[in-house]
Amino acid sequence: MTRLPATVPIPGLPTRVQITEMGARDGLQNEKLPIATDIKLEFISRLAAAGLGEIEATSFVHPRWVPQLADSDVLFAQLPVGPPVRYSALVPNLGGLERALKVGVQRIAVFGSATETFAQKNLGRGYEEQFQMFAPVVTQALANGMTVRAYLSMCFGDPWEGPVPIDRVVTAGRRMLELGCDELSIGDTIGVGTPGHVTALLTAFVAAGVPLDRLGVHFHDTYGQALANTLAALWVGITKIDASAGGLGGCPYAKSATGNLATEDLIWMLDGLGIHHGVDLDLLVRTSVWMAQKLSRPSPSAVVRALGGTPGGEATSVNHH
Amino acid sequence: MTRLPATVPIPGLPTRVQITEMGARDGLQNEKLPIATDIKLEFISRLAAAGLGEIEATSFVHPRWVPQLADSDVLFAQLPVGPPVRYSALVPNLGGLERALKVGVQRIAVFGSATETFAQKNLGRGYEEQFQMFAPVVTQALANGMTVRAYLSMCFGDPWEGPVPIDRVVTAGRRMLELGCDELSIGDTIGVGTPGHVTALLTAFVAAGVPLDRLGVHFHDTYGQALANTLAALWVGITKIDASAGGLGGCPYAKSATGNLATEDLIWMLDGLGIHHGVDLDLLVRTSVWMAQKLSRPSPSAVVRALGGTPGGEATSVNHH
Repeated sequence: MTRLPATVPIPGLPTRVQITEMGARDGLQNEKLPIATDIKLEFISRLAAAGLGEIEATSFVHPRWVPQLADSDVLFAQLPVGPPVRYSALVPNLGGLERALKVGVQRIAVFGSATETFAQKNLGRGYEEQFQMFAPVVTQALANGMTVRAYLSMCFGDPWEGPVPIDRVVTAGRRMLELGCDELSIGDTIGVGTPGHVTALLTAFVAAGVPLDRLGVHFHDTYGQALANTLAALWVGITKIDASAGGLGGCPYAKSATGNLATEDLIWMLDGLGIHHGVDLDLLVRTSVWMAQKLSRPSPSAVVRALGGTPGGEATSVNHH
Repeated sequence: MTRLPATVPIPGLPTRVQITEMGARDGLQNEKLPIATDIKLEFISRLAAAGLGEIEATSFVHPRWVPQLADSDVLFAQLPVGPPVRYSALVPNLGGLERALKVGVQRIAVFGSATETFAQKNLGRGYEEQFQMFAPVVTQALANGMTVRAYLSMCFGDPWEGPVPIDRVVTAGRRMLELGCDELSIGDTIGVGTPGHVTALLTAFVAAGVPLDRLGVHFHDTYGQALANTLAALWVGITKIDASAGGLGGCPYAKSATGNLATEDLIWMLDGLGIHHGVDLDLLVRTSVWMAQKLSRPSPSAVVRALGGTPGGEATSVNHH
């Protein structure tokens, strides 16, 4: 039996992409009950074994804000150092940076907002103030030999402010990059974006002089649009895609935000398009089935549900029969 | 508060599409327990009130095969006749046609398979034999003033045969059209297709002389690909899209087939792209919430879950705040 899906590329699309795996951070930070550190470590280790090369492992946000990730110091200290996997962690401020430095973090991520309201809700800072908060964090991180990724939230719509103007997102994104971040992940935090909006926003970034290879996309699937939006981004030439194993995720400070694009559903599409990604889908599905059992609820990923439905938590083969 | 999603068209895409609503047939035929005829009639009536202009209402397949739709004669006789809604029904053979004629059906649909194995499983006929079965059905339907739609199943992959060659699908589809059907709905029955495959298949149909306006797409979301595949089809210029309210659906003769593309998720994308469809999303979400309550399980549609989550089964407004 031939493996499904059939591979039929679309000429002009990228031939290789880099997935940044969000499940351990964006996913687990939204679980109601904290997950044991050992489970998190096994989850991350299985994600790495499945071939994911960029894994956001945890967050050095204050435990009062995100108690689910209060074990970040203990957890990060136990992660392997160096290739082939690059582990990153969210760092909002100098206090977080200090903790991250102590446990050997080599790549951090700062997270800004394209809107005033969400900056205040998520960061406790105004829109302008957020850049002042991040500037010394990025500077000191770089001075310590770290690299820095930037996230920008609410790039398509904001639950309080409505649709977010494209020029405002481009301005905010460029400011994040100009702090010294090497890439910008463009977030549809509440999942309201659609493919034309994605195309227009990415094109506007390019027109403003930001090279495509410094941009990534970060879609949530709240309205079922995440994979179609990813296709639109590939059409523009994007090669960095954030996704979450099993579709875990959300945002504790935006009620209408649900799970990230599921890594497995993304990989199914990439396989069909003949786009290289380096991930073993069978191993990843088994990992998400295992994690879903630990969380006592089914995965929202369609691929995980379709392939991982056998008793005992082991996935069936990707082959049909 | 401005309505979300923001409308940002993609130049070159169609500006208007025709949705064929599958929930009452492709959806309800897969429910384990039969639904009362009154519930089905209310469902269909609410779909029509939401603005859906093409509704597949039921099936005149023998009740032994699909007991869920054994009430098709009684049901269809109670549907309104004439514009603005066109109601259709599946008809596999002359026996079914006779029943359909008696209750005033004006548009039927025949359903073929692109593969040998599925023709045998779904129709009890070989691949060649199916055309001989359909030919007199279509001829007599047309002679009686009916119009005829054609479905073709397993156009991307088949659970028994694997990926299905594009030229075989084009040949089978043309033969369905040549019987006298006015449009062909190209089905990814088990949801394995990906956007490049969609593009290549539709382009091959056009290259074989089939006009785009005689083609429609019918995606299942088994692997989460349905909306991305629809976007790829829109890029080629497709304007006929099958979808199912609330994502109901599947196929009782192909275990790996799950729900259709959810009409609500499709509409969210179309709204974002500025593509006209004539459907009131709020009314449709309320209908799917109501139907999910009748079926005692949550809708698989992301939009229905996001907007329809309030107690009492009534949807919140599409506006955020």
